[in-house]
Amino acid sequence: MPRVSEQYRADRRAEIMAAAARLFAINGFHSTSMADIIGESGLSAGAVYRYFRSKEDLITAVAETALSSADEVFGSLLAEGATPSPEQAMTAMIHVIDGEMAHHPALGIDVTRVGLQVWAEALRSPQVAARADGVYKRLRGYFAEVARRWQAAGQLDAGAVPEQVGAAMLGLMQGFIVQRLLVDGTDPDDYLAGVKALRQSID
Amino acid sequence: MPRVSEQYRADRRAEIMAAAARLFAINGFHSTSMADIIGESGLSAGAVYRYFRSKEDLITAVAETALSSADEVFGSLLAEGATPSPEQAMTAMIHVIDGEMAHHPALGIDVTRVGLQVWAEALRSPQVAARADGVYKRLRGYFAEVARRWQAAGQLDAGAVPEQVGAAMLGLMQGFIVQRLLVDGTDPDDYLAGVKALRQSID
Repeated sequence: MPRVSEQYRADRRAEIMAAAARLFAINGFHSTSMADIIGESGLSAGAVYRYFRSKEDLITAVAETALSSADEVFGSLLAEGATPSPEQAMTAMIHVIDGEMAHHPALGIDVTRVGLQVWAEALRSPQVAARADGVYKRLRGYFAEVARRWQAAGQLDAGAVPEQVGAAMLGLMQGFIVQRLLVDGTDPDDYLAGVKALRQSID
Repeated sequence: MPRVSEQYRADRRAEIMAAAARLFAINGFHSTSMADIIGESGLSAGAVYRYFRSKEDLITAVAETALSSADEVFGSLLAEGATPSPEQAMTAMIHVIDGEMAHHPALGIDVTRVGLQVWAEALRSPQVAARADGVYKRLRGYFAEVARRWQAAGQLDAGAVPEQVGAAMLGLMQGFIVQRLLVDGTDPDDYLAGVKALRQSID
């Protein structure tokens, strides 16, 4: 019997996460049990519990994998003192939401559906709430950094507060996630055009 | 025994809805049963079923009551050919979300919490999804009408599509709802200041 390799472990872990993600996306967290996840994964209970001790561990792991696309986008947008415009940053994120997140390569599902489940779950679970708070502060921080550099370049009012501008940009992303899932016919380019037109009209 | 009056019926109906709303806001729809609602209301099962045949009926009734504040805001904003600015419309809605919706006078709860539950539920229930689609098209329509009048007044680019601008404004409201519930320290006036600064900086 071959020694269990790092690669083998990573593959099993990914399989279990994908099985859990499929069930979370369809049924939500509450209607999904560890037994369901074990069944969906096709592995033994012992094998699954070796990687994840609880459903909460799986929710956290799935959410982190789902968000890594966003981290990558900002990693490259904010690389080496670049000065991305708010429009560039929002366009990149909307396309990641509608692209890699909607068709997640590793999890095989639309991870934004899990996002909506996380929001609802955060109202009940202080653990999930604490993680959601952390995640959104990180994402708002990325957008705030975009605003800060834009401001340093003289393109944003000197009196503007980057964190506030970051919250507005993050809000536009969250709103797009809601509309894309719940309002028939929502289109990423239409949404971006709407944001642009709204910005071009200043009261 | 006095005749059961319209007022009596309206009061009982409101009591049952408030009981259901309290449980929905805390536990979500899935962990709330009709038996729980009957217990919380303090009325008999027969009395409760006389007003609402199912949990779905109650979800719908609570959601409609929760949204009536938004309808009222736009009813007055868009009255008699007024020309509200996008900023006026967004400011009014953010204050309703943080005010009347967060402390709903009839339901006695923060109804935006029920909103997040509805979003998650819409992913599972085609019935709830159909209603959410209708509700958000109506709200987007209000914001689109604000954009249309703003455009007619020459304040918004003639080439802009009012529905797209409406979607962006609605997205900012949905994002505020998410952040207000999930990101510690979210403040309505900070958020509005962020929106304003973002609009004043055009790439």
